[in-house]
Amino acid sequence: MYRRCGEAFHILRGVEIPNNPYPASRGRLPAWVTGYRRDWFAQDALAGLVVAFMLVPQCLAYAVLAGLPAQVGLYASILPLIAYAVFGSSMTMAVGPHAIIALMTAAAIGPLAAPGSTEYTTLAVTLALLTGAALMVFGVLRLGFLSQLLSQPVISGFVSGSAALIAVGQVGPLLGIVPSGHTAIAVASSIVAQIGSFNPATLALGAIALPLFWSARGALERWLARAGVPAQAAKIFARAVPLLALVLATAVVAGLDLDVVEQVAVVGSVPGGLPVLRLELPAAGRVAQLLIPALAIGLIGFVGNVSIGQSLARRRMERIDANAELRALGAVNLASAISGGFPVAGSLSRSALNFAAGARTPLAGVVCAVLMTLVLVSSTGTLERVPRTVLAATIIVAVIGLIDFATLRRSWNYDRADALAWLGTAIGVLGMGVEAGISIGIGLSLTALLWRSSRPHIAVIGRVPGTEHFRNVSRHAVEVDPAILALRLDENLHFGNVLPVDEQLRAEMARHPMAHHLLLELSSVNHIDVTALDMLEGLNRYALAQGWQMHLSEVRGPVLDKLRGTALLAEVTHASGGTPFLSTYHAFVQLGSRDADAPAPTPD
Amino acid sequence: MYRRCGEAFHILRGVEIPNNPYPASRGRLPAWVTGYRRDWFAQDALAGLVVAFMLVPQCLAYAVLAGLPAQVGLYASILPLIAYAVFGSSMTMAVGPHAIIALMTAAAIGPLAAPGSTEYTTLAVTLALLTGAALMVFGVLRLGFLSQLLSQPVISGFVSGSAALIAVGQVGPLLGIVPSGHTAIAVASSIVAQIGSFNPATLALGAIALPLFWSARGALERWLARAGVPAQAAKIFARAVPLLALVLATAVVAGLDLDVVEQVAVVGSVPGGLPVLRLELPAAGRVAQLLIPALAIGLIGFVGNVSIGQSLARRRMERIDANAELRALGAVNLASAISGGFPVAGSLSRSALNFAAGARTPLAGVVCAVLMTLVLVSSTGTLERVPRTVLAATIIVAVIGLIDFATLRRSWNYDRADALAWLGTAIGVLGMGVEAGISIGIGLSLTALLWRSSRPHIAVIGRVPGTEHFRNVSRHAVEVDPAILALRLDENLHFGNVLPVDEQLRAEMARHPMAHHLLLELSSVNHIDVTALDMLEGLNRYALAQGWQMHLSEVRGPVLDKLRGTALLAEVTHASGGTPFLSTYHAFVQLGSRDADAPAPTPD
Repeated sequence: MYRRCGEAFHILRGVEIPNNPYPASRGRLPAWVTGYRRDWFAQDALAGLVVAFMLVPQCLAYAVLAGLPAQVGLYASILPLIAYAVFGSSMTMAVGPHAIIALMTAAAIGPLAAPGSTEYTTLAVTLALLTGAALMVFGVLRLGFLSQLLSQPVISGFVSGSAALIAVGQVGPLLGIVPSGHTAIAVASSIVAQIGSFNPATLALGAIALPLFWSARGALERWLARAGVPAQAAKIFARAVPLLALVLATAVVAGLDLDVVEQVAVVGSVPGGLPVLRLELPAAGRVAQLLIPALAIGLIGFVGNVSIGQSLARRRMERIDANAELRALGAVNLASAISGGFPVAGSLSRSALNFAAGARTPLAGVVCAVLMTLVLVSSTGTLERVPRTVLAATIIVAVIGLIDFATLRRSWNYDRADALAWLGTAIGVLGMGVEAGISIGIGLSLTALLWRSSRPHIAVIGRVPGTEHFRNVSRHAVEVDPAILALRLDENLHFGNVLPVDEQLRAEMARHPMAHHLLLELSSVNHIDVTALDMLEGLNRYALAQGWQMHLSEVRGPVLDKLRGTALLAEVTHASGGTPFLSTYHAFVQLGSRDADAPAPTPD
Repeated sequence: MYRRCGEAFHILRGVEIPNNPYPASRGRLPAWVTGYRRDWFAQDALAGLVVAFMLVPQCLAYAVLAGLPAQVGLYASILPLIAYAVFGSSMTMAVGPHAIIALMTAAAIGPLAAPGSTEYTTLAVTLALLTGAALMVFGVLRLGFLSQLLSQPVISGFVSGSAALIAVGQVGPLLGIVPSGHTAIAVASSIVAQIGSFNPATLALGAIALPLFWSARGALERWLARAGVPAQAAKIFARAVPLLALVLATAVVAGLDLDVVEQVAVVGSVPGGLPVLRLELPAAGRVAQLLIPALAIGLIGFVGNVSIGQSLARRRMERIDANAELRALGAVNLASAISGGFPVAGSLSRSALNFAAGARTPLAGVVCAVLMTLVLVSSTGTLERVPRTVLAATIIVAVIGLIDFATLRRSWNYDRADALAWLGTAIGVLGMGVEAGISIGIGLSLTALLWRSSRPHIAVIGRVPGTEHFRNVSRHAVEVDPAILALRLDENLHFGNVLPVDEQLRAEMARHPMAHHLLLELSSVNHIDVTALDMLEGLNRYALAQGWQMHLSEVRGPVLDKLRGTALLAEVTHASGGTPFLSTYHAFVQLGSRDADAPAPTPD
């Protein structure tokens, strides 16, 4: 996922560098703490500094995007980083405020309270709490496999649609107008309707900030290096440019009183000091309304964390553990909630930056958290005149690279069903909002999975002459016994394919009027669910009514364990002494000989 | 599904009787019309009569259950039956008002309008229209495989929970009290709170009707037969008892003025005459709110139709076509909508009765529709004093047999995941309502499917000595080439299992430091989605970086067709001339010989 996010793209495509992997923590301290080497500290500290440069404007911008006061973004950028350092399984993940999670937060709370109100903030904190608690519970239940609930095209479509929705929404603040509406079309037409009343000073500030921020994604560093600036200095300076631009724009606004004279929208009063650790819960009814959004936010955050974490870890032969990551992201959101923050997750852009800047361990995150604390205790007074247009520019630059048509194109060329899943999800997000989009995405992923496995392959098999092997009669020259219809089922049997399997088996029986033994080779069947068990029992009754006998061969151990004690197994194995035939060959020998009036073993 | 519905249970368990199957209609007239034999008419007419006996009380009762005026139930019992006769693929399906669909209708419209209001009825008609349109579209798109969206335990849990919810709700009308609440617990506690104020006359009528209705499910017929009544007469009389009881109870209420004197609740004014064919649509916003309920109702109706239709059809060697059934159920609901009715579906109890009464073709439904028309034009005056307690008894008897603990018990013994899906769905319906229940059910079905396929089996394979066959090294005595790590993937590759497959493949590579050829045998792989293609490309990059070469063998035709043109195929097949190895044996011969410095074929 997130395959083409600017610089991250290059990193994720890079060749993997073997490095020292950290075993998962088993004791009280995370493994990276006990194994820490002093000479790593310079690298971790530099990475923490560089990430903080990016985090300051992003955390303010994403809080505003979520409809929250700017300081909530700072609150969400301290304890969560510490929590990840303690619980996380990735060495280079940078957690904190996240553009798409902020959009989902706004979508969840927007209908319930007025943006900027105390109640709105309380609900955002509650949402972080619920997200954290849900992830923690899922992690304890070891439901890490849920990171596989969404296919790659669906994730890409969701991220692309959300990014486009965010980018469209930020054109308003960039121009100094306030669009209305929740869908991309509504927002865009509201902006077009008001385009005449744009604010010139706001647009001027935004128009300067936008290319500066864009250049910080890579071009500036390369340009500085070509101009002879030492590589390390060029890298640090380029990373600091967005923050410098933010400070400069704020100074210009403050110096010229642009917020008063020209009505340039600014962040407004930002209370200073550390967050008070506490939890204020809204009424139970409100909490219930936030449950589904919390699950959606948790899923998107978790899927992103696994994807980012794994991409980065593999570059250095490290591993991440999906269940540990579930618990870590749960702890991170709980930490955000108790410090008055909003839902958070791993950020692709900052994680990639952290990796590129040389972070060795999560200590980089701790350094970053310390720097954010300094900002919070020292600089909130100056933050209140940060122009919103510059935050809008920050957001646009951060999300524009997430729009990923490459996956759509590749899917279109390879598998239309996957391409349609991309389109359905992206259009769902743009037209109906993030929550509807994620539901559509899950639905499309699973429907595609169901659809593919709903057409199972069933082969009529015969014996390869002179061997004990059996192969598809339509692809190999094999011998068959006219009394025995042997079929190999090439897919697990479950509710999603019992109907076509049943139809096909009955059709094969009708096509083989000479046969009266139905032998099912289950060598490729790893699971039979209750629905499929019912189908097989019905098939057995049907076979008996038709004067046939049904048999099983090559049943896998786990499948056989579950079948023991069912009426089906007893009924279909009395010719083979209570157990399925060990091999199709054994079945052919025994069933063939019985037809030849040889003495048959009696069931015990 | 619906496995233990009273008499249906016995029918569905019966042995199948070969009979004349009708090919799906291809011309203008349904096949059963062109092939109709005159001597079938007596059977069809009798079946139509017997089903009408049951349909009169049920259609009134289910309309009231849905919160609608009683005549809406009659409206929904005429044209839909004709529509099914034209479009349906089952010979014995009886469509019309349906208890669970009525409950879902009430749940969908209850929050939007006051029961009994004109708006409420308009919304119900709109819901039927949307349901019909959605099913028709799905049918035209040939999405019949969606009948497999729910596993059997989930369907059983949903039906059981809905039946229990309906039954609990009908205890109120049976006692003459009006319970409040939407969940089973709320309704039950509301009934308990008001239990002292029950209406004695109402309870008396209900207490007489309940065992009469119950006896009509089979006991009465057997008792009459034992008492010497000819079998055919006993059958018809037993079927007519509920209708006779309804008429009698109405006569008692009218004769004694019980509705006035004793406040026995009655159906109230029922306008006579045929429905006016028209469509009155509410505002677009309302329509949008009904879309999800319409999809849920359509899914439940469709799953039920396929299940009932198939169970009955198989008893007579007939077939039903899921896509035709989608379109037919769509037409049935559109027919209900234009005649002022509410959403309808195939009824298990009436279909089983229709089958048992000897229906040969859908002409039985047409006969039934004609009889219902006679009721509507002649008897609506008498319907207004039908006591509601008798309708409640009708409903309770109809739904109580749907509660199916047998499937729960079987699932518990066979597969806990399926049992949990049953419980989660039933509890979801009871605690959170039908729509939440159906969502939970779909979620649990698909999560179980995903979970099972998320742990794929991967075998290291070696050559069976002296043959060209390859088997699992941990189960057979086979020869391996230390330079070649050959792995057989025993599951389709998709987003739901790429992570564990990737992990396992890399782990096997780490366990085989001597090898430098990674050979993936894909004989069991029928599908590779885009997410899995990405995984394989990543694995190939990883293999190259480690100094390995990756190869494929035994790639199935459809998979190979899709892989053509991908970078992956080009990269992993240059050792085999641009195509995967035809067999694992060929790969061993060729890769082995190259290691032995034999001349290797050059890539073209």
